[in-house]
Amino acid sequence: MRSSSRRSKREGRAAPPAPAYIRRQIPFYEFLNEEGLGRLEDQADWLIQEVGLEFREDPEALRIWKEAGADVKETRVRLPRGMARHLCSTAPKKFVQHARNPNRSVEIGETSAVFAPVYGPPFVRDLENGRRYGTIDDLEKLVKLTYMLPALHHSGLLICEPCDIPVNKRHLDALYLHMRWSDKPMLGAITEKSRAEDSVAMARILFGSDFVDNNCVIMGNVNTNSPLLVDKVVTEAIRTYSAAGQGMIVAPFILGGAMGPVTTAASIAQAFAEAMMCGAFSQLVRPGAPFVLGNFLSSMSLKSGAPTFGMPEPVSSNYIIGQLARRLGLPLRCGGSLTASKVADAQALAESADSMHSTAMGGANFVLHAAGWLEGGLTTGFEKLVIDADRLGGYQKLLGGVELDDNALGRTAYDDVEPAGHFLGSAHTMANYENAYYDAVMSHSDSFEQWSDNGSKDTERRAFERWNAMLAAYEAPPTDAARDDELRDFINRRKASAADAWY
Amino acid sequence: MRSSSRRSKREGRAAPPAPAYIRRQIPFYEFLNEEGLGRLEDQADWLIQEVGLEFREDPEALRIWKEAGADVKETRVRLPRGMARHLCSTAPKKFVQHARNPNRSVEIGETSAVFAPVYGPPFVRDLENGRRYGTIDDLEKLVKLTYMLPALHHSGLLICEPCDIPVNKRHLDALYLHMRWSDKPMLGAITEKSRAEDSVAMARILFGSDFVDNNCVIMGNVNTNSPLLVDKVVTEAIRTYSAAGQGMIVAPFILGGAMGPVTTAASIAQAFAEAMMCGAFSQLVRPGAPFVLGNFLSSMSLKSGAPTFGMPEPVSSNYIIGQLARRLGLPLRCGGSLTASKVADAQALAESADSMHSTAMGGANFVLHAAGWLEGGLTTGFEKLVIDADRLGGYQKLLGGVELDDNALGRTAYDDVEPAGHFLGSAHTMANYENAYYDAVMSHSDSFEQWSDNGSKDTERRAFERWNAMLAAYEAPPTDAARDDELRDFINRRKASAADAWY
Repeated sequence: MRSSSRRSKREGRAAPPAPAYIRRQIPFYEFLNEEGLGRLEDQADWLIQEVGLEFREDPEALRIWKEAGADVKETRVRLPRGMARHLCSTAPKKFVQHARNPNRSVEIGETSAVFAPVYGPPFVRDLENGRRYGTIDDLEKLVKLTYMLPALHHSGLLICEPCDIPVNKRHLDALYLHMRWSDKPMLGAITEKSRAEDSVAMARILFGSDFVDNNCVIMGNVNTNSPLLVDKVVTEAIRTYSAAGQGMIVAPFILGGAMGPVTTAASIAQAFAEAMMCGAFSQLVRPGAPFVLGNFLSSMSLKSGAPTFGMPEPVSSNYIIGQLARRLGLPLRCGGSLTASKVADAQALAESADSMHSTAMGGANFVLHAAGWLEGGLTTGFEKLVIDADRLGGYQKLLGGVELDDNALGRTAYDDVEPAGHFLGSAHTMANYENAYYDAVMSHSDSFEQWSDNGSKDTERRAFERWNAMLAAYEAPPTDAARDDELRDFINRRKASAADAWY
Repeated sequence: MRSSSRRSKREGRAAPPAPAYIRRQIPFYEFLNEEGLGRLEDQADWLIQEVGLEFREDPEALRIWKEAGADVKETRVRLPRGMARHLCSTAPKKFVQHARNPNRSVEIGETSAVFAPVYGPPFVRDLENGRRYGTIDDLEKLVKLTYMLPALHHSGLLICEPCDIPVNKRHLDALYLHMRWSDKPMLGAITEKSRAEDSVAMARILFGSDFVDNNCVIMGNVNTNSPLLVDKVVTEAIRTYSAAGQGMIVAPFILGGAMGPVTTAASIAQAFAEAMMCGAFSQLVRPGAPFVLGNFLSSMSLKSGAPTFGMPEPVSSNYIIGQLARRLGLPLRCGGSLTASKVADAQALAESADSMHSTAMGGANFVLHAAGWLEGGLTTGFEKLVIDADRLGGYQKLLGGVELDDNALGRTAYDDVEPAGHFLGSAHTMANYENAYYDAVMSHSDSFEQWSDNGSKDTERRAFERWNAMLAAYEAPPTDAARDDELRDFINRRKASAADAWY
């Protein structure tokens, strides 16, 4: 039950600057009973067997399904009951994604978990400049901040969209920022097969081809087109990343009542069926390739039909999908610090906390959107990023459990302190004080008077000051100059090979 | 797994305006294993047997302990191992606290849970008038708002301190506000024995003496003086409320490193020992009197020593104390929407959500401070009250579980909607839309453009508008004029019997 940092100290090893990933020490929570889980699994099997999924725009995917013995009628693919589950069984229950700094390599699956920043917003927002389209300069700042935030274990990819770079070249510049200004693990591009291939090629330059042949160093993250449609973005990404032995994450995004039934149970089952089918497909492409079962359920405003976040239905689904993923034996992506709020205010953090608390407790192994998400994913908040990341450190500690050894029970403390006394300055307090409590840097706990004297700054204002101070203090991790040259040569060649495209 | 409102409709009964309390439909979470729980229980037993608790200022309490066979040396009380637990076994695992409106009566214990507002802050804050001492006018507004908020099942008592009323008469006016402007269940005064007695006397007027003799209609809520000190405020409250068959809640408030050891496990065990001893005492006073085991653990800022809230250590304790209370067989009070923030901002709701999510999931049966708490409990926020209460409705739905019947699985939905189609407007969506998702009134989910056009109001601003609009729409519940006269006579007589005292 000891934390890893304490253990490191005791064993005389130098502790790394922060744990590279989370090692969960507390049990999983069983939200549904066996019968309930069986009903959802049966529903997913029924969808795959009777309704089937559409696999469109990629004849090679249909060929692979046919060869595997699937029932393929035009673009509809159905599998006999149990086949998808059986195919998924060759995927690892957990795997390591390597970072260029070996101390930053992460383990994904079972009791190991990883937090990554928001992915994909076209807009960014900060307190003084407001909301605007994201640029490559914004993305560089966000990569650097993510590198510096200890509870973000993974660099992600499009922490915002760099909208000032041509669409067909954006992935090259974006990926390079992560390879240059961070040493945490990262995602690759997926929007087109050539971009996925470029991502794997750049990973080969950064890590060396031999290493990439035998290890996961990059992952693709895609959504299905719910309901029950898998287009070529998904299958081509799998045919690129999985074929290269790299990681794939497939997350159905279901706004209940639109891309899935409005009832929570049905949406969970549909999402599970879609992701399990993609997992099965990945194992046909390359048995043993790392695959993460994704899930992204959103509820809806009754007034407007707009997506809502942090509500009890998706919170329930975070707990339930964790159970289903563990029974299937696949690592899980779900949840995140999600909100519909436009700013980093009370609504934003209430929704984010309920979403993220259930994500963490539910057993997610890879959490995209764990920090920075605003406005239903349309905007990356600079302030939100550092506020969320501060809370993530708390979830990391929560998942580490509570120490229960003799020191933690502290009977000796009562030798020093009589009833009605106090423990301030007692030997037990002094010996344990430093590591006793999580140090949340974005939480202001001083008195009202101190807070007023310091300008009555709310959290958003303090966060603005913090991320600016962090950027001013940023120091780049060491880079191999030869590999950096090679990366930049590759990018220049690829950019020169095609005219700019803006859509 | 159906929600109670649906069940009511099916059975043709009129549904009450809101569920009077929560009926939990999901399992409890086992944070610690059997061995860990055993270690904490053994530590609590050791504290009671070896260290003992101080019972000061109340000779009658010592007499009761001696008569029961306790080891009493001066003011130190020690019990043989197992005696405290055995005494607690006569307290009910759950009980009903009656409200003057029978539809508002609540059940406390086992899978039934109740949310109550913040208790005791001397200051209030609202967005336009800032932070100031609370007044009787503020308290009246807070009582009315609590009455109107459906996820607050209980009216509490001092939602703020009415600082403009003499200290020795404050309890009379405060309690009257709840009896006059609300019909939800309430707490009584505890600061002095005569004030506790006044509270029970007023309850006798409101409910009738016969009813009070046989039913719980009011409860006292007190803190021990940790570490291990029980003063006369506690024992006299127990000797008043428990003796009258009314409810008692005893919650040690432990700031780890000050009123208890700095390690979480030791603080949990100490709090458990203190509360269990008070439970045992209540059962000596009157076997079978309702008793709620309380727990309030706070962590500490490493920089300043100030209390911190919503941090992983107290969050863990919310889960763990739930396990301990269930094993002991007593209803539990813990947690709340706690924060050190001075305003209803990102910090406030992040801390409150993690605190409250774990409180709800951990199985608390009575949650004081569930809404309105700011600044470590020094201030009641009008905006915070309505924002918190909106989130409480979400926890209520979460605890209600997920429906898994044929309608919820919705196979018929796939008759209407082909893969790649959409469920908007489908028969299954239309039939389930209205009850599918929690309707969070404080969450803004419309577009950025709509939000901007409406003045870019953050949550705090929208909350200010909401509570003012609610007060404008307030309608008092019906009151029995004769009993109201009798209550006011009683208050006037009691006020006339003593000079004003201001401390």
